Amino acid sequence: MSELEGNCLVCQSGGPTAVINASLAGVIEEALNHECIEEIYGGLNGVVGVLNEDLVDLAAESQQAIRLLKSSPGSALGTCRYVFKKEEDLERALEVFKAHNIRYFFYIGDSESMAMLDKLDALAKEQGYEMRVIGIPKTINNDISATDHTPGYGSMIKHVATTVREMAADNESIGEGDYVSILEVQGRNSGWIAAGSTLAKRRDQPHDPPHIILLPEIAFDPEKFVADVQKVLAREKYCLIVVGEGLVDLNGNYVSAKASSTDAFGHVQLGGAGEFLRGIVETRIGVSARSCKLGVAGRAATHNASQADSDEAYLAGSAAVVQAVENGKSGKMITLQRAEADSYKCETGWVDLADVPATSKQLPAEWINDDGVSMNFPFVKYATPLIQGEVNLQWENGLPVFVNLKATRIDKVLPAYEI
Amino acid sequence: MSELEGNCLVCQSGGPTAVINASLAGVIEEALNHECIEEIYGGLNGVVGVLNEDLVDLAAESQQAIRLLKSSPGSALGTCRYVFKKEEDLERALEVFKAHNIRYFFYIGDSESMAMLDKLDALAKEQGYEMRVIGIPKTINNDISATDHTPGYGSMIKHVATTVREMAADNESIGEGDYVSILEVQGRNSGWIAAGSTLAKRRDQPHDPPHIILLPEIAFDPEKFVADVQKVLAREKYCLIVVGEGLVDLNGNYVSAKASSTDAFGHVQLGGAGEFLRGIVETRIGVSARSCKLGVAGRAATHNASQADSDEAYLAGSAAVVQAVENGKSGKMITLQRAEADSYKCETGWVDLADVPATSKQLPAEWINDDGVSMNFPFVKYATPLIQGEVNLQWENGLPVFVNLKATRIDKVLPAYEI
Repeated sequence: MSELEGNCLVCQSGGPTAVINASLAGVIEEALNHECIEEIYGGLNGVVGVLNEDLVDLAAESQQAIRLLKSSPGSALGTCRYVFKKEEDLERALEVFKAHNIRYFFYIGDSESMAMLDKLDALAKEQGYEMRVIGIPKTINNDISATDHTPGYGSMIKHVATTVREMAADNESIGEGDYVSILEVQGRNSGWIAAGSTLAKRRDQPHDPPHIILLPEIAFDPEKFVADVQKVLAREKYCLIVVGEGLVDLNGNYVSAKASSTDAFGHVQLGGAGEFLRGIVETRIGVSARSCKLGVAGRAATHNASQADSDEAYLAGSAAVVQAVENGKSGKMITLQRAEADSYKCETGWVDLADVPATSKQLPAEWINDDGVSMNFPFVKYATPLIQGEVNLQWENGLPVFVNLKATRIDKVLPAYEI
Repeated sequence: MSELEGNCLVCQSGGPTAVINASLAGVIEEALNHECIEEIYGGLNGVVGVLNEDLVDLAAESQQAIRLLKSSPGSALGTCRYVFKKEEDLERALEVFKAHNIRYFFYIGDSESMAMLDKLDALAKEQGYEMRVIGIPKTINNDISATDHTPGYGSMIKHVATTVREMAADNESIGEGDYVSILEVQGRNSGWIAAGSTLAKRRDQPHDPPHIILLPEIAFDPEKFVADVQKVLAREKYCLIVVGEGLVDLNGNYVSAKASSTDAFGHVQLGGAGEFLRGIVETRIGVSARSCKLGVAGRAATHNASQADSDEAYLAGSAAVVQAVENGKSGKMITLQRAEADSYKCETGWVDLADVPATSKQLPAEWINDDGVSMNFPFVKYATPLIQGEVNLQWENGLPVFVNLKATRIDKVLPAYEI
């Protein structure tokens, strides 16, 4: 395989995760190992930065900054939810690549991004511009098919399960069979995150909290819910409920009172599943309830990130570079796979971008217990390895310190583009 | 001073903090040093356990358990919000003390508890029963007067400030001058916790988040709020707002939509200040907003507790025993004081229980900037030492392990009592 010489470009897109910057660090550090890669550029705000030619010089960043990426929340290069909307966007991206001799394009994103990358890869081939396009998966929601799990998910559920354990200790102190607490977690379309809260249970302690897990996969039935809560309260000092924000009623509508508002990206904004449940508990059962909502603070909780997840995020980034440079791959998404071994070991693989389904990977129905509000052992076995280990932070004056890239701009050489 | 021989009893009350169990550990470990203390009992659920004679043998707990108290959330002995409501309660408590030869009573609680302890101390003296009653302050809200600060507060604001830094990194990735995020924190009557979020700002970076801090001390004016947010959005990529749950409008009513519901303890339940603000931002400014609410998960976040706070909580517990045993003090609350020194050093002192005001200690108005939505340097200087250092947790299989006391019961010797 002859080596393709030129520059590389890496971008981040979609909602940040606690470890998306670890993937970025993996790309940068691996790219430095390959002489055929001349310059290492970052695109600001995903493909928006590509279209606008907003490129920065990542090789100019200090080693300290690159190290700090591994323990910094957010997306250090900025992000976007934009995917190419018209043919011209693809053409423009290629123009930018050619203008800056970009021969390697690494894009950290979710399923929607992968379809876009596939088109980009096809257009480059069509135009006879030799380049390699590789997708690197990320998402807190674990909903990208074709990979065993997604970088970002392990840290998300480690923090959720930690939070459940801590709330449980607090609730245990207060309750006398009369206290309900609710933790609302993310998950618009799937219950992967809510399901992960089950890791808070100790082995062989099925009555440990969370006592009730409400998944978007299972339509919410208020009568059953009231009965379930009452059953827990009769047995325990308190009832701890975890609910995915995307919980739907029997008609398939979000239970959230806020379901009708939409954000700037056209996504329905969910804010109220926890408060909705609190209302039911207080009016129907007549006991005191409180709800918490992690929201953005949950996915950004790098201070409680999983080392395994961080390592795998980094690995996915570096594997992208290796596949592109050493194996000449293009039009692929890196995957995480479980090695055939007695104990958990994660390896990377790849899949054609065209084979990454746009639809969300659903939580397997066979991992949900018959009661509809708890997870069984196969899920626990699947998820436990993903939360192992604690990421070391850099602390200063009592608070974690996060990366601030210098982001030295590369001169623009093309006329401006209207997105 | 002749040593008073007998048993000691320790209880926890009110809302748990991240370090209230460190105070319990301080009492237990110091009590073990004094031969005049024969048995070390714990009362379950505060004074409710005293009235019900629900006592456990703390000397029977393993050393491992006592060590684990220092990094466990919740109140390991259980808690209560009950304060003696009738003269009979005081009489009954004395009866229980006499029946179990309790000569030392240590009570970890807030201002309300201190007034109750004072009555108990007076009644013991009146009845000629020699015993020593000492209060140990705790609260996330920092609202107990007569002590420089309260164990529990430092950990609370360390977690809030960490969360702000993490949300900021996430928001910075997403925003383009059009993104508002809101963190709702506890604080029914005072803004101590919301104010603490200012520690997230780097030194000499007044424009760092949190951009707007809304304190219950300052009546909420929607017009000014909209203008403040717009000003931040014109300058920054996003606007991060921290709001205390007890924010009130110009008429002194809670802004929270849920202000009319009350919990089992008769406290007004606040849940909606964050969502209330989100509504204003979306309808009045027309930009996307999201809110997070730490709630119980915030005060229970021992995984991100302050070592300084934990050490001081422990110190307050051990000082209570020392004051009672070595100095024969009774009817006092332990205080934390800043030593006269160039750098911060915390010492303990004491104050008469009768001199602990029942009213909440207010955030000094002179520490709030003229803009009404930010804190000045004297506050930062006050609060910074309280968040230093990180508590070491015991981790197992990716999650923190918390204490589970054996709680070996002491036989009851009195007839039951109706609370």
